[in-house]
Amino acid sequence: MDWFNQQIAQPDPVYYQKALERQRLLTKPPGSLGKLEDLAARLAAMQRTETPSLERVRISVFAADHGISEEEVSAFPRSVTVEMVRNFSEGGAAINVLARQIDAGLEIIDAGIHRSLGLDNVIESRAGNGTDNFLKGDAMTGDQLKNAMDAGKKAVERAMLQQAQLMIGGEMGIGNTTSATAMLSALTGVDASEITGAGTGLDGRGILRKTEVIHRALHKHRLNPDNPLGILKCLGGFEIAALTGLYIQAAIQRMPVLVDGFIASVASMLAVKINSRVLPWLFYAHRSDEKGHQTVLDYLGVEPILNLQMRLGEGSGAAVAVPVLTAACALHNEMATFSQAGVSSGSG
Amino acid sequence: MDWFNQQIAQPDPVYYQKALERQRLLTKPPGSLGKLEDLAARLAAMQRTETPSLERVRISVFAADHGISEEEVSAFPRSVTVEMVRNFSEGGAAINVLARQIDAGLEIIDAGIHRSLGLDNVIESRAGNGTDNFLKGDAMTGDQLKNAMDAGKKAVERAMLQQAQLMIGGEMGIGNTTSATAMLSALTGVDASEITGAGTGLDGRGILRKTEVIHRALHKHRLNPDNPLGILKCLGGFEIAALTGLYIQAAIQRMPVLVDGFIASVASMLAVKINSRVLPWLFYAHRSDEKGHQTVLDYLGVEPILNLQMRLGEGSGAAVAVPVLTAACALHNEMATFSQAGVSSGSG
Repeated sequence: MDWFNQQIAQPDPVYYQKALERQRLLTKPPGSLGKLEDLAARLAAMQRTETPSLERVRISVFAADHGISEEEVSAFPRSVTVEMVRNFSEGGAAINVLARQIDAGLEIIDAGIHRSLGLDNVIESRAGNGTDNFLKGDAMTGDQLKNAMDAGKKAVERAMLQQAQLMIGGEMGIGNTTSATAMLSALTGVDASEITGAGTGLDGRGILRKTEVIHRALHKHRLNPDNPLGILKCLGGFEIAALTGLYIQAAIQRMPVLVDGFIASVASMLAVKINSRVLPWLFYAHRSDEKGHQTVLDYLGVEPILNLQMRLGEGSGAAVAVPVLTAACALHNEMATFSQAGVSSGSG
Repeated sequence: MDWFNQQIAQPDPVYYQKALERQRLLTKPPGSLGKLEDLAARLAAMQRTETPSLERVRISVFAADHGISEEEVSAFPRSVTVEMVRNFSEGGAAINVLARQIDAGLEIIDAGIHRSLGLDNVIESRAGNGTDNFLKGDAMTGDQLKNAMDAGKKAVERAMLQQAQLMIGGEMGIGNTTSATAMLSALTGVDASEITGAGTGLDGRGILRKTEVIHRALHKHRLNPDNPLGILKCLGGFEIAALTGLYIQAAIQRMPVLVDGFIASVASMLAVKINSRVLPWLFYAHRSDEKGHQTVLDYLGVEPILNLQMRLGEGSGAAVAVPVLTAACALHNEMATFSQAGVSSGSG
């Protein structure tokens, strides 16, 4: 049996109920903290504690190149993947800024950009020199898929050593909305024309070309929607497979995860298709502006925390959502109860 | 001329444009930070700087009692206003926890609870011993209205001495959703049945009773929608008038403001009706779960930052939104540009 099929424990319903009970005792009208109450209770259930906390957040950003980028499906040239890895390593990208702001640990993983850069502060878990063009064949071999998923698994293992209390997976890879959209269409049967978006900023003609590329790929590969590993192998990217591995291993390790935007959500959907018990370990950070994201959220039946029209990736939307979770924890743990404060509770 | 009618300067469009130009140079697809880009640019325009910042946030929470509370329009007894002021002074309420979390200065102002508590860390700017029941007459006298608005003005002056870069006004007062809903109906002509909500947690019957109270009050007072001061005097609360004064004085002083939920938004609407040039100085923090809030947001044509189904007041929703603004500033100031990082910019 592969590691990703193993039994996954679920968040503890006893702690969930205890948390909801405490919320009713705090000096506020019942339910008036809205989603913050459920977020705190879910985290309490995952951490099996009465005082959920997020002092140590860990962000792992995976970068990889995509063979499909030679079909001109992006507003940016393929070279940008490598250039952005350098930018990550120098601290200038959005996720660097946000990681500093929320005091999170950040690691950059080369999951298979087209050539190794040999940078000190970039972890090399390379499944290859970029994927192959999935219009011409499979994006990756079976071994490459396993290695890419292992890259995500290893990131969780490093986070465990750091005693992280929440993980965020980010991604960078020119061409990866094309890969993710093709997989979303293969998984759901929703036609690519309904879910193909602008990615990094395609115009209308570019979106039509990207849609056609996805149509041709799906026609060529004729994938079974119930074979997520087959879909990843044919249409995926190394960074996306790494995120899929990260989500599964995090759930196995009872590690709460905050899922970022479109690409990350598709990776999480693949994880859930591989092992359905992953889902309760995932928080969804934000509703991305990328066209297909709502389809993913609807399919999974999840409601994200933020809606800021972001569409950057890198884990950036998830990093922006962290303080909301932190606020939920602080309120849960630190507010006075009605009896402590001598406040009359309501009739309502 | 009253102080609140004076000329108000507007945020500087030159700095707004400069900020948008910088956003296009940062290492990300143009527009991919969504609302964060506009938030940073608006703040840059208000602060007249290329590097907007929010290191010093100030929260002023105003508490007052409401004569209308004797009509059983709340799920909580009137005594809770006083009890919650004690809770604020002891650090146990939601806004205390959130102020600590975002490292904001917090002050509690007694704007007119039914009796002075003489607490060291509560500022007394009392316009009276609670308002009168507006079913029987005006909620307050003209002098009380001026004093209550002055309480808000003084809070801004204290914040200026602290060199605050953003202000949040919060409120506490059993009965104040009834007051705010009545004023919203008077200002917009929207019938109370369409905008009266559960407040602290009324059931269906309670909401009907509250709606009827508002109908009777509006029938009695026959208010002119274009006389916001008259509406405040007849139906308002001291804490709501204080917030109205705070928003106007903040705009006069070029102080950015983050508006909280339903009550605060109605107070801001009154401020905008008194002086329309207040509006560009206001950020709206969140969409409250209180029924009438959407009507206020639509009337003002504003889009809030968060939607977490909160309905607590105290400035709590605004405090939760602060890290989103802080993230917007950090990204704006700290991200590398394409040329700094040697990243190719896109064709899109």
